[in-house]
Amino acid sequence: MPFSETLKSIVESVGGGLGAVIMADDGIAIDEYLLDGSGMDLNLMAVEYASLLKEVKRMADVLKTGSLEEMAVNTGRSQVIVRTINDELFIALILGQDGNCGKGRYLLRREVFGLRERLS
Amino acid sequence: MPFSETLKSIVESVGGGLGAVIMADDGIAIDEYLLDGSGMDLNLMAVEYASLLKEVKRMADVLKTGSLEEMAVNTGRSQVIVRTINDELFIALILGQDGNCGKGRYLLRREVFGLRERLS
Repeated sequence: MPFSETLKSIVESVGGGLGAVIMADDGIAIDEYLLDGSGMDLNLMAVEYASLLKEVKRMADVLKTGSLEEMAVNTGRSQVIVRTINDELFIALILGQDGNCGKGRYLLRREVFGLRERLS
Repeated sequence: MPFSETLKSIVESVGGGLGAVIMADDGIAIDEYLLDGSGMDLNLMAVEYASLLKEVKRMADVLKTGSLEEMAVNTGRSQVIVRTINDELFIALILGQDGNCGKGRYLLRREVFGLRERLS
């Protein structure tokens, strides 16, 4: 699993991290790291977010606001930050409700540069 | 336009703000404030984000992560932060690419309390 060390490092250093996944735009998880006991179904999440990202990309086309870089969704029990790696791949970080969203956004932005190089 | 002063205050104090809109979940803009020359079609944006929010709410139901509180979308040329006011209404803040997203999230979170009281 070539990317799991990067994912583990992000999850464990962000503060309140539960898991992270690199996913393709068809909803298939390429690699993942999940804290024990988080109780999450990362595969279901990857499928749902891949579907949502297609909608956001279509919307960005309609609104002519440029290509999607990052999306964050906060709900009652979790925060999810998704960042584009390239045309086909995304990285998603899942935090608990008290997780450090700002640091999560920073870490994803920083790590995506390295992921792009390794994937090109 | 009862809410335009609140919207104006958010847009002008956030740093890099372009406009803000209170919208219903059917995509109708209830009230809005837009900087001159921003070149945006807030009505089209409201319709698109209302449609996207329905998808996010459906997804939160599927993933059982609680109700939607906030969503942020960053594209090449803009940042949009959307926050739930109640079951039917949302507030959206549009920033330029160099806008202060962190302060925008803070201001929306703070103002939504007052908006809820005035709308109840």
